[in-house]
Amino acid sequence: MPATSYPVRPEVLAFEPYSPGLSIAEIQSRYGLDTVIKMASNENPLGVSPYVQKVIADHAGFAFRYAQSGNPRLVGALADYYGIPAAHIVPGNGSDEIIDLLLRVCPSPGLHNVVACKPSFSMYRIQSRLCGVEFRSVALREDFSFDWQGLLAAVDERTALVFLTTPDNPSGWCPSLAETEDFARSLPQHCLLVLDEAYADFCREQGRSLLPRFREFSNLVFLRTFSKSFGLAGLRLGYGIMPEALANSMRAAHMPFSVNILAEAAGIAALEDGAFLEATLRTVSEGRERLSEGLTSLGCRVHPSEANFIMFRPPATCAKDAAGIFQDLLERGLIIRPLKSYGLPEHLRVSVGTGEENERFLSLMREILA
Amino acid sequence: MPATSYPVRPEVLAFEPYSPGLSIAEIQSRYGLDTVIKMASNENPLGVSPYVQKVIADHAGFAFRYAQSGNPRLVGALADYYGIPAAHIVPGNGSDEIIDLLLRVCPSPGLHNVVACKPSFSMYRIQSRLCGVEFRSVALREDFSFDWQGLLAAVDERTALVFLTTPDNPSGWCPSLAETEDFARSLPQHCLLVLDEAYADFCREQGRSLLPRFREFSNLVFLRTFSKSFGLAGLRLGYGIMPEALANSMRAAHMPFSVNILAEAAGIAALEDGAFLEATLRTVSEGRERLSEGLTSLGCRVHPSEANFIMFRPPATCAKDAAGIFQDLLERGLIIRPLKSYGLPEHLRVSVGTGEENERFLSLMREILA
Repeated sequence: MPATSYPVRPEVLAFEPYSPGLSIAEIQSRYGLDTVIKMASNENPLGVSPYVQKVIADHAGFAFRYAQSGNPRLVGALADYYGIPAAHIVPGNGSDEIIDLLLRVCPSPGLHNVVACKPSFSMYRIQSRLCGVEFRSVALREDFSFDWQGLLAAVDERTALVFLTTPDNPSGWCPSLAETEDFARSLPQHCLLVLDEAYADFCREQGRSLLPRFREFSNLVFLRTFSKSFGLAGLRLGYGIMPEALANSMRAAHMPFSVNILAEAAGIAALEDGAFLEATLRTVSEGRERLSEGLTSLGCRVHPSEANFIMFRPPATCAKDAAGIFQDLLERGLIIRPLKSYGLPEHLRVSVGTGEENERFLSLMREILA
Repeated sequence: MPATSYPVRPEVLAFEPYSPGLSIAEIQSRYGLDTVIKMASNENPLGVSPYVQKVIADHAGFAFRYAQSGNPRLVGALADYYGIPAAHIVPGNGSDEIIDLLLRVCPSPGLHNVVACKPSFSMYRIQSRLCGVEFRSVALREDFSFDWQGLLAAVDERTALVFLTTPDNPSGWCPSLAETEDFARSLPQHCLLVLDEAYADFCREQGRSLLPRFREFSNLVFLRTFSKSFGLAGLRLGYGIMPEALANSMRAAHMPFSVNILAEAAGIAALEDGAFLEATLRTVSEGRERLSEGLTSLGCRVHPSEANFIMFRPPATCAKDAAGIFQDLLERGLIIRPLKSYGLPEHLRVSVGTGEENERFLSLMREILA
């Protein structure tokens, strides 16, 4: 093929080259394993609700139709679920798409900036870069709580968006309602506070979200997803709840068919299946206690978590570092998440699994740390 | 709620306000109809392949898992299908996402420009605007063929991308292979020619695409979709085939999980179901002849089409204009596509349906035109 000379934006040329992870099948064949347990991506330990599976199967025959633009049935179901007018709700192809769309709609490249914690969900930073928008990050405090004063100091008259993940990833830490509220009220009025509540359903007390009181604030955006507590990560369904005028701008700029028709049907069904959600929350709550206690008794430093995962640091006395432990687990057929890409190479993150998966993980950890 | 003062980009404020179309259910209730036939969105008249439906149902239980980033299984299946190395193929959440990503990766806002026909698929223009990239459009010739000289004249040293839809939407016209090849070779080497082949499978002769010869060119990008001939519009699955270095840049800038896991499974299955594709192409070919002949005999001016739809102009002698005919059909339970948004208010577009749907459409047209 002849040499090419077409333009590629300098911002994009600076992106890391893409490197796909190993699939479960590749791990099986590489290490000669029959089964592989994945506790790496904060997926739902109970899988997909059987009721939702049936709805997906029943709708398979409709996949030749475009979904209705704007997904009004889904938005209506969410409006009923939260008791919030539909005009405030914007669904997306995962909340990733809503993050990206906020960055495309609000800040002007070269003019405005965006503030988030360091480390935080990589999508905030990566999509800011792709949009040509300045990204400012403020280090977490030593205990992985947010540096509220530092965040406020990073905000200036050109800050369009502040992104916070509550509960936070990868630590599992969650601010109190009062802290979040104080921060929201301290921000200048031109600055939107985006509260990414992907893991909010897993909080011990449900009173950690400002969502029920969103009418009191003019500058809050809530991000929620069906990927975690509703068990639909693979279908890609998230949404933002935001001031109506912003929602109108988002809808105007939104690609009309980004949410697929099976995600829409599955999402509506998932909202109806309260029993599955309850079973998920119970499984996560029990598993989180068990993993926390088990890892602590193995000498790991466990961070208190309000999410469906646990961040921990292997004992300093262990001959193996975090990367070595990750690799040992992998070779034994269990995948967790190394946190080097978060700038935390000494920490590991494990998603809460089923009771059996949690026991298997703890027993492998016992073996490896011995 | 207090007044808001957060920034919204001026480009976005200029976007048309969002207005969702009526759903089939809303049309039924508004006009008191039992059934509604939709021949408006160029969907597959045969629906979803039964084999693919089964694969979707079988995979419903995996929807709690994120798909593997980059969708290597799907990309591998496409590579085998076309006999093209996987490194050239980038899948997306519909080819809409690939169009958007090309506009985000190649042209620098405020520096480069993009060229397309007028009218053409609205996504080229809308996403260019959202990216802050100058969009230049060149009117089609009177017979709806491309104005090759006009296109070349619009291209300059700052043109990053030229978008052409072949066969074209909404006319159904398709350039010959020689015309497309001449044009590709006439473009300056820094300019990528994006051939959007969403409807290429429906061409009378398969020799209308340069895809089998893509290695001979350094500046071609092919867009293909599972929405039309494969019957998966609602699942959102498209892909681009492009020079490897560009594909690497696209992958680096791509959101990692935009393609959903059921689209991936369904797409792989659809490639295996040659019998369904063949039945689709036969149905479209026969229906296209029948609609063309039927509309012609009713005095309509029918444009020759190589796609799964037909553009026509009602007879000048008819008391009703195109908008009136569209409305009359709607009230009788049949949806087609008015072309006002394409700047063609005197034309209508009808998607090829099943034999029965085509007859119903022609009989309603006979009634309305009488």
